[in-house]
Amino acid sequence: MQDHGSLPSVLDVHVNVTGRSSVLGKVKSRKARWSVRPSEMSNKTFNPIRAIVDNMKVKPNPNKTMIALSIGDPTVFGNLPTDPEVTQAMKDALDSGKFNGYVPSIGCLSSREEVASYYHCPEAPLEAKDVILTSGCSQAIELCLAVLANPGQNILVPRPGFSLYRTLAESMGIEVKLYNLLPEKNWEIDLKQLESLIDEKTVCLIVNNPSNPCGSVFSRRHLQKILAVAARQCVPILADEIYGDMVFSDSKFEPLATLSSNVPILSCGGLAKRWLVPGWRMGWILIHDRRDIFGNEIRDGLVKLSQRILGPCTLVQGALKSILCRTPQEFYHNTLSFLKSNADLCYGALAAIPGLRPIRPSGAMYLMVGIEMEHFPEFENDVEFTEQLVAEQSVHCLPATCFEYPNFFRVVITVPEVMMLEACSRIQEFCEQHYHCAEGSQEECDK
Amino acid sequence: MQDHGSLPSVLDVHVNVTGRSSVLGKVKSRKARWSVRPSEMSNKTFNPIRAIVDNMKVKPNPNKTMIALSIGDPTVFGNLPTDPEVTQAMKDALDSGKFNGYVPSIGCLSSREEVASYYHCPEAPLEAKDVILTSGCSQAIELCLAVLANPGQNILVPRPGFSLYRTLAESMGIEVKLYNLLPEKNWEIDLKQLESLIDEKTVCLIVNNPSNPCGSVFSRRHLQKILAVAARQCVPILADEIYGDMVFSDSKFEPLATLSSNVPILSCGGLAKRWLVPGWRMGWILIHDRRDIFGNEIRDGLVKLSQRILGPCTLVQGALKSILCRTPQEFYHNTLSFLKSNADLCYGALAAIPGLRPIRPSGAMYLMVGIEMEHFPEFENDVEFTEQLVAEQSVHCLPATCFEYPNFFRVVITVPEVMMLEACSRIQEFCEQHYHCAEGSQEECDK
Repeated sequence: MQDHGSLPSVLDVHVNVTGRSSVLGKVKSRKARWSVRPSEMSNKTFNPIRAIVDNMKVKPNPNKTMIALSIGDPTVFGNLPTDPEVTQAMKDALDSGKFNGYVPSIGCLSSREEVASYYHCPEAPLEAKDVILTSGCSQAIELCLAVLANPGQNILVPRPGFSLYRTLAESMGIEVKLYNLLPEKNWEIDLKQLESLIDEKTVCLIVNNPSNPCGSVFSRRHLQKILAVAARQCVPILADEIYGDMVFSDSKFEPLATLSSNVPILSCGGLAKRWLVPGWRMGWILIHDRRDIFGNEIRDGLVKLSQRILGPCTLVQGALKSILCRTPQEFYHNTLSFLKSNADLCYGALAAIPGLRPIRPSGAMYLMVGIEMEHFPEFENDVEFTEQLVAEQSVHCLPATCFEYPNFFRVVITVPEVMMLEACSRIQEFCEQHYHCAEGSQEECDK
Repeated sequence: MQDHGSLPSVLDVHVNVTGRSSVLGKVKSRKARWSVRPSEMSNKTFNPIRAIVDNMKVKPNPNKTMIALSIGDPTVFGNLPTDPEVTQAMKDALDSGKFNGYVPSIGCLSSREEVASYYHCPEAPLEAKDVILTSGCSQAIELCLAVLANPGQNILVPRPGFSLYRTLAESMGIEVKLYNLLPEKNWEIDLKQLESLIDEKTVCLIVNNPSNPCGSVFSRRHLQKILAVAARQCVPILADEIYGDMVFSDSKFEPLATLSSNVPILSCGGLAKRWLVPGWRMGWILIHDRRDIFGNEIRDGLVKLSQRILGPCTLVQGALKSILCRTPQEFYHNTLSFLKSNADLCYGALAAIPGLRPIRPSGAMYLMVGIEMEHFPEFENDVEFTEQLVAEQSVHCLPATCFEYPNFFRVVITVPEVMMLEACSRIQEFCEQHYHCAEGSQEECDK
């Protein structure tokens, strides 16, 4: 006991309520005063949606009920409940009492087997070892970036694109290079510009298909061209396929990994959108690496990183088999029919409004609308346009500046049909009131 | 459309199955071959428990059923189910259909209000704004370290202590300085040595009470002395109180924040242990900052960091109010009675074994046992000792090298009583077979 010595008397001080203590003999103060500063990482963590939306100080028009077309959450209006089989699967997992404890940080084996077998196909085989369960698709993306990139390296991110890519990358000191999507080509990638961005520090290409915020779905041919760039430049792909299979009947979703046997791909997905339970935070990474380019090192790296905070709620893991196997086809079909119908309705209504140029979506839950700013000279940009739309019409759309794409706004198409119609009619009224003929285009104004 | 140009013909290549493409005119290759390396962060992410346990290659004795006293998961043996009110609360949240969508990244307001009011007390008041819900206590600790420390700065971590602190810190490039707990003083902190470690780069003191792996509970007086060091040296505290309130009847748990009005404290907790649902991943941070030393900057930093991967499953958030308010006192009481009884039983049995020196626990779910290695010369250290215990007796205890504390092992006391007894009897047999008199201590061997 003497080895450790008894407590020195100098420690018998009372906590000094001023936060500073008097000098106490032997023990020298480290510093005279408190100074607790947030880390560089937290300072670098920046969510553009929050920054822009929180700065929109306008109040909605008190005479009109608010219609929020801004939130990418299909559960907000109650018109898109998840399937009863999904709820039942959770109750069964609860009642079993078997899913309250810890499981491996990458998810329990049986659940990973289920995901593997659900997404397995001959062109892109999957086993349990290729699946990592994560706390939502956000953590899936975070782990992929964390394993592939060091500070100072760079990743390729779509513009317009989901803001989380940038938020995560910059918080980790990873540089973001934006490649362009082309609205006039249904938001296909400008492949030439994409390829021109790649340098020796490029460690990952993020491909988001179907797209948030565009609602676009890439064709097989276009995906092959993207893969060709990745193969030629030896850049692995993070495929954000959280909206996978959420495409309208006239399109087809092709999982990226089914089209390449040589480009290593980390495909991120989850229950959030297709099963309409984004709050449950069940995501996954599917590792496609048939040429052993990632190899054990990247796999081990993902496993190690998963141990930092562990994975998703075990109850949802326990319910996963039933959720994947028992959810009826009709449920998926009904969701997509509804989205397609709302998309057509919204596209049709907005396309008829002078000054707006909606781009017809093929999947996901969104539609992007171009604003011909020259016809709305009162507004400096999309942020002011959407701000005033809230103030006058109580309709809230996200300015696409949130997605690094000015002079567009994003419409969420999960709202009930009657709200969608009302919103479009208010947008029409708003545009009619603010539309000005651009100089030298009198003919258009005569229409 | 011409602005963006049409696709250059050079991109019309087929994916080259060798992973290398031939030179294709205009576009120059970035590099000739694939080379995907894991990041420095993943290389630095090291879980000592995994490293040590996974390297233990021995097989259990095939003639004895395995008894795992190694896993800090109270649900493993089915003898400690959660309360039916907890399960019912989850079903109610499911049936309401209101908790499937996104909520704020720090948790929904009503749930944060519940946690605040549950842990509020006059000496340490809490409001919803002081609560951040996290994906398990692991994420709570991760966010706290991420907001307080930059790479190159250091934190103070107990030895023996929970290995996650080191895993998280080193993955972020934060230096770990180990302060000693004193077994002969019921694992109180060696305050003098603690204070001697503090330098100008020290940004956080982690205090884990009740302790994993020690099962110790600090007295009010000792906690006040710890706070005095923090106050004198101006070091904020991360109080890992995940085992808060899990103390036996002869001890009292004092939340650290109730004993200080001037030291800023981030207290981490969650449902995992007390409500026996570690897999549900519901944790929280309670911000105690009555002198405004953290200020808005640290609070904002935590909010920003929470947006990187969002928080816990919304269903559990929805159930939180009922879980906190409706779980009967009897449930907590029964759990603690069981743990206390098992702790007494295990302590009594092991204290009678020559060569072992258990330290009596006062809370949590663990008991640490010193090995008088001089009496077990066959074994180099605690790792070999516990390894051979598995091989001969099929009893698995974690060597305390996992907690940076050699020549001890940790026993988990959540196993059913009959298993606890059987395990102790096997440990006794093992020790008797391997016990050797140390040189010059004949008298002890004559006992």
